[in-house]
Parts: sequence; structure tokens; C-alpha cells
Amino acid sequence: ATFVRCCPSSAQTNSFTYRTHTCGELRRHHAGEKVTVCGWVEFNRLNRFVVIRDAYGHVQAFVPDGQESISAAVKNITYESVVKVTGTVTERADKHKNPKMVTGDVQVDIDSFEVVNTAPATLPVSLRKETEVSSDSALRLKYRYLDLRKPQMQQILRFRANLVHKMRRYLTEEASFVEVETPTLFRRTPGGAAEFVVPAGKPNIGRFYSLPQSPQQFKQLLMVGGLDRYFQVARCYRDEGSKLDRQPEFTQVDLELSFTNQEGVIALIEQLVCQSWPDEMAELRPSAPFERMTYADAMRLYGVDKPDLRVNWQIEDISASLSSLKKESNDDWCARVIVAKGAAKSLSSKWRKEAKRLIGMNKFAQPFAVCTLKEDPLFKAALSNQDFLREKLNLQDEDAAVICWGTPADVQKTLGQLRTLLIEATGVRNQKKMVFLWVVDFPLFDREEDDRLVSAHHPFTAPAPGQERLLFDGNPEEITAQHYDLVLNGVEVGGGSIRIHDAATQRHVLKNILREDSTELEHLLEALSLGAPPHGGFAVGLDRYVALLFGRGDSSVPIRDVIAFPKSKEGHDVMCAAPTAPTDEQLVRYGIRLIES
Amino acid sequence: ATFVRCCPSSAQTNSFTYRTHTCGELRRHHAGEKVTVCGWVEFNRLNRFVVIRDAYGHVQAFVPDGQESISAAVKNITYESVVKVTGTVTERADKHKNPKMVTGDVQVDIDSFEVVNTAPATLPVSLRKETEVSSDSALRLKYRYLDLRKPQMQQILRFRANLVHKMRRYLTEEASFVEVETPTLFRRTPGGAAEFVVPAGKPNIGRFYSLPQSPQQFKQLLMVGGLDRYFQVARCYRDEGSKLDRQPEFTQVDLELSFTNQEGVIALIEQLVCQSWPDEMAELRPSAPFERMTYADAMRLYGVDKPDLRVNWQIEDISASLSSLKKESNDDWCARVIVAKGAAKSLSSKWRKEAKRLIGMNKFAQPFAVCTLKEDPLFKAALSNQDFLREKLNLQDEDAAVICWGTPADVQKTLGQLRTLLIEATGVRNQKKMVFLWVVDFPLFDREEDDRLVSAHHPFTAPAPGQERLLFDGNPEEITAQHYDLVLNGVEVGGGSIRIHDAATQRHVLKNILREDSTELEHLLEALSLGAPPHGGFAVGLDRYVALLFGRGDSSVPIRDVIAFPKSKEGHDVMCAAPTAPTDEQLVRYGIRLIES
Repeated sequence: ATFVRCCPSSAQTNSFTYRTHTCGELRRHHAGEKVTVCGWVEFNRLNRFVVIRDAYGHVQAFVPDGQESISAAVKNITYESVVKVTGTVTERADKHKNPKMVTGDVQVDIDSFEVVNTAPATLPVSLRKETEVSSDSALRLKYRYLDLRKPQMQQILRFRANLVHKMRRYLTEEASFVEVETPTLFRRTPGGAAEFVVPAGKPNIGRFYSLPQSPQQFKQLLMVGGLDRYFQVARCYRDEGSKLDRQPEFTQVDLELSFTNQEGVIALIEQLVCQSWPDEMAELRPSAPFERMTYADAMRLYGVDKPDLRVNWQIEDISASLSSLKKESNDDWCARVIVAKGAAKSLSSKWRKEAKRLIGMNKFAQPFAVCTLKEDPLFKAALSNQDFLREKLNLQDEDAAVICWGTPADVQKTLGQLRTLLIEATGVRNQKKMVFLWVVDFPLFDREEDDRLVSAHHPFTAPAPGQERLLFDGNPEEITAQHYDLVLNGVEVGGGSIRIHDAATQRHVLKNILREDSTELEHLLEALSLGAPPHGGFAVGLDRYVALLFGRGDSSVPIRDVIAFPKSKEGHDVMCAAPTAPTDEQLVRYGIRLIES
Repeated sequence: ATFVRCCPSSAQTNSFTYRTHTCGELRRHHAGEKVTVCGWVEFNRLNRFVVIRDAYGHVQAFVPDGQESISAAVKNITYESVVKVTGTVTERADKHKNPKMVTGDVQVDIDSFEVVNTAPATLPVSLRKETEVSSDSALRLKYRYLDLRKPQMQQILRFRANLVHKMRRYLTEEASFVEVETPTLFRRTPGGAAEFVVPAGKPNIGRFYSLPQSPQQFKQLLMVGGLDRYFQVARCYRDEGSKLDRQPEFTQVDLELSFTNQEGVIALIEQLVCQSWPDEMAELRPSAPFERMTYADAMRLYGVDKPDLRVNWQIEDISASLSSLKKESNDDWCARVIVAKGAAKSLSSKWRKEAKRLIGMNKFAQPFAVCTLKEDPLFKAALSNQDFLREKLNLQDEDAAVICWGTPADVQKTLGQLRTLLIEATGVRNQKKMVFLWVVDFPLFDREEDDRLVSAHHPFTAPAPGQERLLFDGNPEEITAQHYDLVLNGVEVGGGSIRIHDAATQRHVLKNILREDSTELEHLLEALSLGAPPHGGFAVGLDRYVALLFGRGDSSVPIRDVIAFPKSKEGHDVMCAAPTAPTDEQLVRYGIRLIES
């Protein structure tokens, strides 16, 4: 297991270096060749056999008889020291071949053994106990570069790079898109509460840039500028404080095109996904078109707007059968169930308690019960459970039923979250299967508790064709948005929309519907008035998408694992200790001071 | 000239849109086809002929007889309005063909004419007067998206994207490099006076990130992490206040590899340049190896460390002939000359005055004279000029000689700058020719006026092989660095070095030679101690390189012209008015307040 093959190498892998081969590429046909390999000392046996590792694999080097000085060097070598070894490849005797090692048929008989850099006898974190990476602990993040040496991390970084390269090749070569770099020193956007700020220096002291959460405005401005097929692998920023599995900087594959519509963008993204699909995962490759579901159906059947369809557990109405639970006369009442086939054995009492706690944290929480044929504590009094579960719900011994009752909209949300918890408990979340789903026909606006209308996604989203007039004389809440989310295994991996291209409509939405101060967007409104084409686009959340793909669909892989140097959940770069207290010089330079807390 | 062909389009250019063709692609063989084109109204003649433009070219649409409603729409249309036109391609009668227009053999007989977005009758900046882009004025920057519609800007963005794509393909597919994204929310670096800061939010209030000037530390940490061939098209940041032709954010093609040396990196970069060379500039493609020059020779022959070799004007010593200029007994004296062949006619008295002023602004300025056979005001008294110029310098009527005398090191610098000014004055700067040059063997350290040693480039640069011991017992000023700059037409387009990979050496350089506080770099020092391979790398200044290439060598093209949304030289995003005064909410969120000025 130590000798996992890491990354394939080729002749080019050695170009411009003084090694002749990587540690992973030597085979029987190299026997007799004089080679130079460089790498880290992985293992030392009897001071004569040294296993050397690089990103591409391992090879054993051997100290020939009578090489006293090499023996001495090998004797003193510490693991993870860097060495440069020149020698002759020889085939091992059959009994010494190691079938677990890709290069196990050969060894390098050492002519010259150069210790290039000596590692200490003990490393701050072990590289040897686990082959898998864990980005959980602060200690591991501090020594991230040691974890990077592990085969899994080497694979992840290459997997990510290859995927992005294929996306670029598809967009550039097959779909005629132009990659354009847009600024990250931007201005504040309305409602941009999660935007990092960058104080400007001379001659702009006292003024601030903002780091954008996406290139949204710039890509729309590019469309106004006649560049009709744009994309960018864009760094984006969001200051959300401590949040599990969110990073303050993250990457989007961002794109936009003109003279298109929702069907156009959806077809493009399906092609992008399929054409950039990793070769090594051919058996999981989706085929276009992907399944589609309206937002209304997603909420009705799954209680969430991004259902995981690796299982088809759906919400069913059982109000008629459970009307005895209805406490008072209330028309706005329902009872609904999710039958989770095969889930019974996974639902420990610990899980039940935790589910109770998590659901209870929500405002929308409604009463619920988790029932199996063996355990149905809540229902004993209410009805003949066994019959109900068996006959009405067709429950088998191995199944579980989650029943929830109360206000319909909140029952849906409660069941939606319970479904997610069931998926986690039953291991469906880790299932190596990929189910893509388009969720469409979102509402354009949501109504907040204070009765304000807010954009369900963002204020630039266009209403569905034919519904524009409802913006002016209708109920805005009834308007369907030209917004579409791409969901993979219950995770939103991207979203996009057709944008408003008419300045007057955009101004009306901002001013009269959202009641936002449009001064922060005057530049965009003016641009729309100067000949803006119809346009729409999409953004893929790259970190999340890579994590799902590398995990073959396992939606529990944290995005930290697919980022070379992630921040901790507190937003710290633990390795180099950032952020850090500013110097007086920095504060003076930017004309700011800290407020004492 | 209005009908410049813009960007080639292909069948894919229309995929996922509701146009069937771009405006630029229709030809005689399309005659009879029903097509839909979308674009901007460029021109309207007699309310019957409408020229429509998109990024790919222009086409004429024609209102057939009797189409009253289309006539009416065309009559009212304003230039730069967006239209969608469906019609049938017909070949024009020979006398109506327009040979200046790529699509001039055909027109589209309109069936349906949809005005998608109406532009105002007058635009804030004209799109019609100039076809060339000028990023100089604030007004043009404010309406950058209008300039983006011009063919030249459309070409630049595509040229840049294609170049970077070819670089990526070479590095990924031919050279086995892995693109890795590194963080931009980083920590302060020693001496990082030009670093923007980003105040952190909860739970890190009172602490700051810094935006990196390059991914230098991360790429070295990747090498320590065993990822031995890294590159990145990296956004970098530098706060330099107002500087002409510098941008606060800019892009580097950054790379690093392990187990290499100076020759390895130089060969790699030569391949990168040659393999990614734009096809349309084949006649200017350089061939490897590029010319090389030591830093000492560059200073001796050209007075600068990045000579423009499009002309071979060299500095020659004429101390013996001009010793009469030597005022007092001073061994440290010289007189030197640059003979600029053919320069005489370009050197106006205005230029002479301006050269005087510019040179005079430097501390190192030494007395100089600009002489031609017709004008040699300064020398009349000193010697028989005509003879001297003619016989000693072999000056012809059309040539100029720039003579400078004084302290040798300062004479070199003065002549170096004068050479650059001559290159500008004579139009050599705009010459469409590409001369690449490696400058090597830089000193590792420079001595400041206060006698402190500073890194000539950065503190991670390794000494030349065999000179390591001079760090410990020698004169550090005599050490040659393993640093190499790539110069194109007198402009540094990239630089790199072999790095120090030994922790003790790196600590010694920081602590004992540079006298820097190494606490800001403890993470890097520790990483070097835990098994760092020898490594080196390079960074291409992409904006500058693209500007030079797009200009076919013209080194006067400002980098603003090759950036979609550049900042003004004051660091303003004039279009969206950034930076801007912070809100109270932002200040509170980040625990800072402004210092009243």
C-alpha cells in the first residue's frame, strides 16, 4: 500500500532537468541503462537498499559490494532527505522482485549517491502512517507541503489541472470562447456585505477597492463591448467568517455569451461537462441532455432545490391517514412522509438524537418521527402503526419512514433536511455515482419576512420570456426567472441565468421592485443603455466540482482537499500565519487605524 | 478602412446562439440561404441599406421593395443599436459589390428586422472617428466597453487569449507542467512595501492579509511539496501609486521546476516562447538559443541591463581623445561615446532640450553633448570637432554622436539612458522586429548608499555554482547570482533564478548579509529544512509581453491597451469609479477607521 503508483510520467517529464528518469518509470526494458534519478528517501533497509520517491513513483536503489563511502552515506541518511542517485538499472533476481511495486522488477545499482538536502530525523507530521490526506488538523495545514508529497495529493493537483485544461480546450478550441482576465480590484456592489475591501494607497488614500465575489458585472460589460463569447477561470472572494467547507478565495469557471437563451446556455454547459470529463472516469461519464426538474417539483418531491437523486426517496402526502395528529382546526396543515428504502439499519439512536437537534435549530422546524417496523415510539398512541407502516407505506423490515406534520411549506423544508441527513447516515452520500440534474423555473423574487422583495439569485436575472410585463403590472412573486442551477449529487455545482439587457427594465427592478440604491450600479445601467445585446451565462464552482469528481461522486469530500494551500475554516493560512497584525507602516501607508475592541 | 476584417469565426462561433452566421462570414456561396445575423448597426444608407457589425465583421442588410414596416424600423434606427436580422443571402450585382468589404459580394435581403436594444442618437465617445484604440483619456476608459467594440480591441483580446492558451498547451501537454492555483490572500513579506493589504473580518478582526506581488513563496513551497513542475497564469498585485504604464494588478506566467539548473530553465523558456509563438507572426518567430550577454557586458556596451539590440549602437571609450575635458586630476574619469547611425535627422532641438531635462533628473547625471557634423556646440572650444567626429568616430552627415564624460559608472548610466532616448527619437522603438536577449551573471547583492547590502533581485536567489562559500567567507558583492532576465527589444519581459534550497544558507543570507528580520519567513525556512529539492523558475510579465508581441516589437504600446479593463495611471477604474469611499458598515465590519488627513 505504500507503493501506490502516483502520477504517470513521460519523456517530457524529465526535460530541462538533470534527472534522466522519474522514480516511477523504470522497468525491465531499462536494464543496462545508466540513469540519474532524484527524489526523497522513502525507506532504507540494511543500509544497502534505499527506496527513493518522487511525484511519479518509487524505485529501489542498491549499494553494490565494496562501495564503502556510499554505504556510509546511506547509513546516515534520514527519511525525506533529498538525494540524487546515478547508477545502472539491473533486473532483480526473481525471488527479489516486488510485485507490489510498479518498478519492483528492477533496481538501480548506485555509482554515485549525492545527498542534496538532509531532512531531520523526525518530521513534525508523519508522512508514513497514512497515505490519505487529511486537511482537518491545524498541524497538517501548517505543514501542508509535507502532505503535498503524498501520492493522493499529487494526484488531486494533477486531476484538477487536467480537468481545467480540458475545459479550457473545449471552450477555446471547440466552442470559440475567448478567455479574458477581468479585474479583482473592483468597487463595492449593492448588498455586497461579504466583500473583502482593499484600502487604496496614494493618491487614493481614504478610498477602498472591493474584491469581487464573481466577475458578474465585468462579463456583462464585455458583452456590451461586443465580445460575445467570454470565459475565465476566475478567482473570487467572499468573506463569510468561519464556515465549514467554505474558502475566502475560491475559483469559478465563469462564462457568458450573447444572442443566446436558456436552452443555449444549458446545452453549452452539458457539452462542457461531457467534453472535459476525465478519461479515467469514463464509466461515470454522463450523457446529455441531463435530467431537468422545476424548482416547484424539486421542493414538492424532495423539499430542497438541489435534490440528490442517487436515491429516489420522495416526499408523499399522507395527510388523510394522519389527520388525527392535527391538533386544531387549521386548513394549512399536512402530514407527509419519506420512505427511505434500506435505511433502517443505519439509523442509530445517536443519529436520531442528532437529527432532532439539527432540525430543531431551524425556524421552520416541524414535528417529525423516524419510524421503522421495530421502532415507532411516537405513533403508538396515534394509530395502529404496524398496519399503517406496512400497508399504507409498504414498509419492509429494512426500511425507515420519516413522517413530518404541520405547516406544508415548513414540512417540506423539514423533510428536505431530513432526507439529506438520511443520505448521509446511509452512506448514499459517499456513493460513487454521478447524477446531474438541472433545476429550472426558479422564482425571480422571494419575499423576506419584513415583506421586502429580494432577488432569488441576483438582480440582473431576466424574467421568463413573456413575463416581462409582470414586472410592471403584476405580482412580482409570480414571475419565473430565467435562472438554472446545475446540481450534482445534491450539490449545486453551478448556476446561471439570462440577464436583463434593457436599461429601463434593469433600473425598474433595482429601484421600484428591490428598492435598492442604484447609484452603485450607474455604470452598468449606462452600459446597458448604449447598445447591450441579449446575453446570459453560467459559473461553475470549480473547487466543489473538482472535489465531487475526484471523489467519484462522494459528496463528503471537503473542498479543502482539492486546493493546494487551503485556508482553515477560521480563514487562516496556518502554514504562513496569515492574516497577521498590520505594521504601523502599513496603517500609515493606507491612512487607517484599528478600532480598539 | 471602416471595414477592417476583425476576427475569424467558425461554425462553432454560432453554436448555442440563435444567430446562424456571424456578420463577417457570409460569402457568395451562401447565396440563397436563409440566415439570422445579430449585431450592432454600423451604418444606414437611404434607409434601405443597413450595415450590421459584430466581433467577426460586417454585412449589409437590404430592405426589399414594399416592406413598409421594415423600412420604418430602419428609418428610425440609431447607430450602435442592437438588431437581429433574418433574411436571405443574395449576391449583389457586380456594380454594387464592395471590394473593400470582406462580405461585399453579398447582402442579406431582410425578412424580419428586430430592434433588440436601442442606442441613443449620440454616444458619449465616438466609435466612428478612429478605428484604433486609445486608452489615454479618462473618457475613453469610462466607456471602455465602447472601445472594446472596435476591431483592434477585439483582435487584442483574442490575440492575448490565443497566446496564453498556446503557452498552457505547451507547458501542460509538451512539458508535463501542472497548473496550480495559489492563494492571493497571503501574509506580509519582508520589504513588501508595495503590498496591498486586506483587512480580515470575523473572527480575525485587527489582522490583515496581503495581496502577493508574485506566487514566489508558494511555488517554492510546492517544490518542497514534491510537485516538481508547476506553472500558473497568476494574478499579482503591486501598489506603486501613480506610475505610467504600471497596473496595480497584473498577470505573470509563473513557473518553477525541481532538479534543474540555469541552463534548464533558460532552455525551457526558449521553448515556451517559440512553441507558443502566434502563427500569424511566423516571419518574426525567434529561433533558440537566444543571444546571451553578461550583466557586465550589457552595462559596459549599452549602459543598461536590458539593452534594445534592434540597433547595435554601443558605448566606446574616447577618454584619450577628450582628456582636455578632464577638469582636475581624477583617475576615476572617462569620456565615452555612442555613435547613432542615421540618427541626425531625428534629433530636434526640442528633443535635445527634453533629453537634457530628463537626464538632469537623475543623481547619476554626467555632462554630455549631442553632436552631428552640422551641430556640435559644446565642443567648439575643446578640439577640432569636425576632424574628431569625422576621423575618430567615422561620423557621416546623417549620424549623431552622444558624448558623455565624468565618473565612469555614471557615464555608463547616462549614456544608457541617452541611448534609450535616441531609440525613441529615431523611431527604432516602434520598429517591427523582435530581438530576444538573455542577460545573465547579475551580481547577487548591491550595496546601497547607506552601505547596506540588498538583494539585486530577491533574497531567495542562489549564488553561482562554486560561489556558495563566498557567502560565508568572502566579499558578497563579488558573488554572481544564478539569475537570468529575458529582454525583448530593450524591455524585460521576464526573469528568474535558481533558488537557495538549503535552510541554513537561506537563513545566513537573510540574517547575516541582508540583516533582515527573518521571522516573516520562518515558515519558508522551516520548509527548506524538511527536505527541499534544488529548484528554480521564471516569471513572464504577461501584459508587457503581449503588448510587445501584438505591436510586432513596437515597445511603445502601453500595457493598458492589452488589458480588457485597465486602471488609469492613478489606479482608478474610471468605468465603475473604484476605489471609492468606504461605508460606515464596511469600516465597522473590518474594525478600522480612516485617519483624517
